[in-house]
Amino acid sequence: MTLAVRYTAARTLDTALAQSTEPGPGEVELAPAYVGICGTDLHIFHGDMDARVHAPAVLGHEMSGHVVRVGPGVTGWRPGDAVTVMPLRWDDTCPACRAGHQHVCQHLDFIGIDSPGAMQQRWTVPATTLVRLPDSLALDRAALVEPTAVAVHDVGRAGVRDGEKVVVVGGGPVGVLIASVARATGADVRVVEPSAHRRLLAEDLGLTTWDPAAVDVPELVRRWTGDAGADVAFEVSGAAGGVDTAVEVLGVRGRLCLVAIHPRPREVNLHRFFWRELTLVGARLYDRSDFEKAVTLIADGVIPADRLISKVVPLTEAPAAFEALEGGKDVMKILVDCTDASRGAAV
Amino acid sequence: MTLAVRYTAARTLDTALAQSTEPGPGEVELAPAYVGICGTDLHIFHGDMDARVHAPAVLGHEMSGHVVRVGPGVTGWRPGDAVTVMPLRWDDTCPACRAGHQHVCQHLDFIGIDSPGAMQQRWTVPATTLVRLPDSLALDRAALVEPTAVAVHDVGRAGVRDGEKVVVVGGGPVGVLIASVARATGADVRVVEPSAHRRLLAEDLGLTTWDPAAVDVPELVRRWTGDAGADVAFEVSGAAGGVDTAVEVLGVRGRLCLVAIHPRPREVNLHRFFWRELTLVGARLYDRSDFEKAVTLIADGVIPADRLISKVVPLTEAPAAFEALEGGKDVMKILVDCTDASRGAAV
Repeated sequence: MTLAVRYTAARTLDTALAQSTEPGPGEVELAPAYVGICGTDLHIFHGDMDARVHAPAVLGHEMSGHVVRVGPGVTGWRPGDAVTVMPLRWDDTCPACRAGHQHVCQHLDFIGIDSPGAMQQRWTVPATTLVRLPDSLALDRAALVEPTAVAVHDVGRAGVRDGEKVVVVGGGPVGVLIASVARATGADVRVVEPSAHRRLLAEDLGLTTWDPAAVDVPELVRRWTGDAGADVAFEVSGAAGGVDTAVEVLGVRGRLCLVAIHPRPREVNLHRFFWRELTLVGARLYDRSDFEKAVTLIADGVIPADRLISKVVPLTEAPAAFEALEGGKDVMKILVDCTDASRGAAV
Repeated sequence: MTLAVRYTAARTLDTALAQSTEPGPGEVELAPAYVGICGTDLHIFHGDMDARVHAPAVLGHEMSGHVVRVGPGVTGWRPGDAVTVMPLRWDDTCPACRAGHQHVCQHLDFIGIDSPGAMQQRWTVPATTLVRLPDSLALDRAALVEPTAVAVHDVGRAGVRDGEKVVVVGGGPVGVLIASVARATGADVRVVEPSAHRRLLAEDLGLTTWDPAAVDVPELVRRWTGDAGADVAFEVSGAAGGVDTAVEVLGVRGRLCLVAIHPRPREVNLHRFFWRELTLVGARLYDRSDFEKAVTLIADGVIPADRLISKVVPLTEAPAAFEALEGGKDVMKILVDCTDASRGAAV
């Protein structure tokens, strides 16, 4: 049996025992160690994704763990291997896949949203999704590989280069990771974030932050860049004002990388895109190379993943952790420890 | 003396005699032959650009003509040379210029908007703005070099490649020129245009057109592309619905080139930019290489410039031509013949 955290209806999670699944051909059964709670998980919790998520649904797609059993035909993996999962299953036949963009397959199965996720004691996934972790890498940090892969992908989509001036609008976990990856690429970075707690954490990581409620961000960017404007902006806030700020800070030929999800259309200053010949680049998910680079960045300590972990809770307390995350601004990343079900049902 | 078409107040043009200017150091005096009336000229006429245009203002920036006199220090040009003008004067010191993007200089002087234009019998400009025309090129066609340079720039900004599927939203002069340049680049092109007259003209040029009021454009694109979506869309309509269409027709990693001016912010489906990893590229004006390529495309007959000329009017009838263009949809390009002032004042 496996204990799992399930979304059952809007604003309702439970933990329930389920039969674990024998790994089929090409599949691997994992024992998840740590699973991060992501903004998307919160959207699901709020009921915003009910059209896509079919309750009861096991959540979780930011994880680390070990291989427990391998299914028929699986080579290269054996029980005990430390792994993370790139939670994407594509069809390899749609136009996007045929053009080489499998990660945005037109019929993508995002594991943990469209199919059962990692927030459980046993989890069966295709062996093709596994990404090897070095033995030296602590598994709590490794649970940050997935959001770090997002950041690596975003920085790559924006084409950030050594010496460029970069503004990251939104200093939550993904914003701080983007800022860290951009800095590791040689960029000079500013993080715009209204939450004092999050600014403090970013500053602790050596990042310079601005409070948009207290300062005139576009004016500061003009001074910072000698009236040139920033080379790159990342919109990670999801707010209408964040889009405006990201557009306004950019210099001629600046690039805006759109990371946040804006479910409804937003008013955008298209005149400025014309006038300054700006570029807007959408960025979604990651590919295997992004994942592998994320593993290296965390293992080498370039990304201080441990500093982003606000709290670790046992599996049985995950539902309460979702409630706590609602307040949201005073925490960064909460991990669920799937090996700790001490207060829950017997395994 | 030189007879000039002047904007004096919203919806008011006159023709007036002015003293012609002796070309100063580095300047050249031209005798404009043909000057096209552009959408921007209409915006000025409507009074929409009064913050920028200081009446009385001589309009016109799409021109062909001859050199009449050269000022001190000008080399390489002599009276009688056939020329067009790239109507840009930049400061060479702002951050955009220093980054090599002089055409979007942060203090750009667009000649014909910010300073006196070509719709007159004598026109003095910096010699650096001159672009040589081959003797074989008829001067009426050559007046289309400037808008063709816009199209060359736009197709370049979008990175259109041989074999790509391209949707041009808006079939006015610039839309048809973009479609023609994209086709010359090897692309398969569709033009979306509500005006029957403009569709007919585009079809006459061998372009395939769609009437957005009569067909479901995104659905047609899905069928045309085997559900992949278009590689590139150009937004040349300036309408809110045009932006929506351009976003909706694009496939994964599609590029939207924003050509039209949208004075006010527009609602944009940013979620689709995220979901399909789309790119939006602003495109403004041109540089010298775009101008030189435009001369070649027209001189070689690749761009059938003559087919886009709806009408040629004498200088003295330019004010009436602006009124006629108001209806707008049944004409493409009207040229003002500056050598013909037969019904006007003596020169």
